[in-house]
Amino acid sequence: MAAVSETYVSDAAAFAVLHKTLTIHTAHQTQFMDVTRLIEGAVQQAGLHSGTVTVQTRHTTTGILINEYEPLLLADFRALFERLAPTRFEYAHDDFLRRTENLTADERPNGHAHCRAALLRSSETVSVRQGLLDLGQWQRVIFVEFDGAQRRQLTLTMIGTPMPTRVLAGRGSEAISR
Amino acid sequence: MAAVSETYVSDAAAFAVLHKTLTIHTAHQTQFMDVTRLIEGAVQQAGLHSGTVTVQTRHTTTGILINEYEPLLLADFRALFERLAPTRFEYAHDDFLRRTENLTADERPNGHAHCRAALLRSSETVSVRQGLLDLGQWQRVIFVEFDGAQRRQLTLTMIGTPMPTRVLAGRGSEAISR
Amino acid sequence: MAAVSETYVSDAAAFAVLHKTLTIHTAHQTQFMDVTRLIEGAVQQAGLHSGTVTVQTRHTTTGILINEYEPLLLADFRALFERLAPTRFEYAHDDFLRRTENLTADERPNGHAHCRAALLRSSETVSVRQGLLDLGQWQRVIFVEFDGAQRRQLTLTMIGTPMPTRVLAGRGSEAISR
Repeated sequence: MAAVSETYVSDAAAFAVLHKTLTIHTAHQTQFMDVTRLIEGAVQQAGLHSGTVTVQTRHTTTGILINEYEPLLLADFRALFERLAPTRFEYAHDDFLRRTENLTADERPNGHAHCRAALLRSSETVSVRQGLLDLGQWQRVIFVEFDGAQRRQLTLTMIGTPMPTRVLAGRGSEAISR
Repeated sequence: MAAVSETYVSDAAAFAVLHKTLTIHTAHQTQFMDVTRLIEGAVQQAGLHSGTVTVQTRHTTTGILINEYEPLLLADFRALFERLAPTRFEYAHDDFLRRTENLTADERPNGHAHCRAALLRSSETVSVRQGLLDLGQWQRVIFVEFDGAQRRQLTLTMIGTPMPTRVLAGRGSEAISR
Repeated sequence: MAAVSETYVSDAAAFAVLHKTLTIHTAHQTQFMDVTRLIEGAVQQAGLHSGTVTVQTRHTTTGILINEYEPLLLADFRALFERLAPTRFEYAHDDFLRRTENLTADERPNGHAHCRAALLRSSETVSVRQGLLDLGQWQRVIFVEFDGAQRRQLTLTMIGTPMPTRVLAGRGSEAISR
């Protein structure tokens, strides 16, 4: 029924934590943004070889979703969240006559967006192997905006071992790092 | 469309794992408890400087939610879960005439609470930077009780590098740690 | 209201990342498979003593759920997902006359399975202490199949410190590792 197919043990000598903050700009009220390459680029720029990257949104009306990025499926996701937490519904959070807390000057009705975000994740942790996100064939990391357009931030926390230092050709044996 | 705004690489010399178990007591059947300060206090007490803290519930009728902690929004979340998994609904798990497994002396109907918990997370991983939880302006870590009142446990697993040892004033240069 | 009940600091000398890929075979369209022992066995085989294991599905019509594994409750979960994302519903993803992307030779209607997977997690991170998954009394790690029967892969990423090397009896003091 089940088989363990492979084990890879990294070099334990040089563990590191790396933090990155990514800024993205959404253009629509509801939007699915494929951030897979953005995250993989950041992982490679940081030099993480083996470990995990935790992708975290810094917002309460957005979420992280790992699924297939196919346009018609995104329409299905949109319809799903509209059924589960309809835009046109009376949310107490949007009753500005009653509400007294966390009010800002530019407050707008977004109770539906909070409820939808509650059904997604704030963070997902993805395996990194040899500098690549270890995702399945159809898996993409999707940033989901439920209350755009806005400037948004994602934080990446990478934990693991760095890329082995490469031997630089033509620089003599003293350039070969241990 | 996207920009990597900062990179911070921690001291890789002293990696550690720290485990903590927090005990909390809920007072109501459905309850949203802001545990952000509790977790941040535990992180600081443990001395984690840079890394991640994984917040995990040890129960199957509770969940972890990172969202805004605003009283009217919590009422919206309560209504959301009541719509998605109503309290008054026939759950097979609550049919004690049919059920034969996992029965305890104090068994009570809580099928709705399991279904709601299934729509939340058992764990969320939060970035820790300079001893602080790296959350956005409105983000709070919320422990969600769907079958209270009960005594509950949260486990925290912290991975990363410890606080740099502080220079103690007035103790001479030999007290300055490297 | 809350108490920190214990702290355990691991040996920080020998951090490691370990990757494993598990292959499982599902037998039904919708299936809940308890993979707790499978994961714990892999953790022990890998020799992880203290840290975390991130359990990640490599598929977009499956999910990871940590909850109670009780047969009647599983029937409730099945009914829950059927209510939230019904099998008999028109999903744009399944409109093969309109769809142009990500089409394979063996494409079958599975929009409902993607929508259900979107409501679960792709990954959960579980604490490991003394080589055991640190789960509560009723918690099981459940692999949820929404589009079976299929061959499926789970990846495990373990981060932490290895088992202390055991003193081997009868082999003399030189066999005692530091």
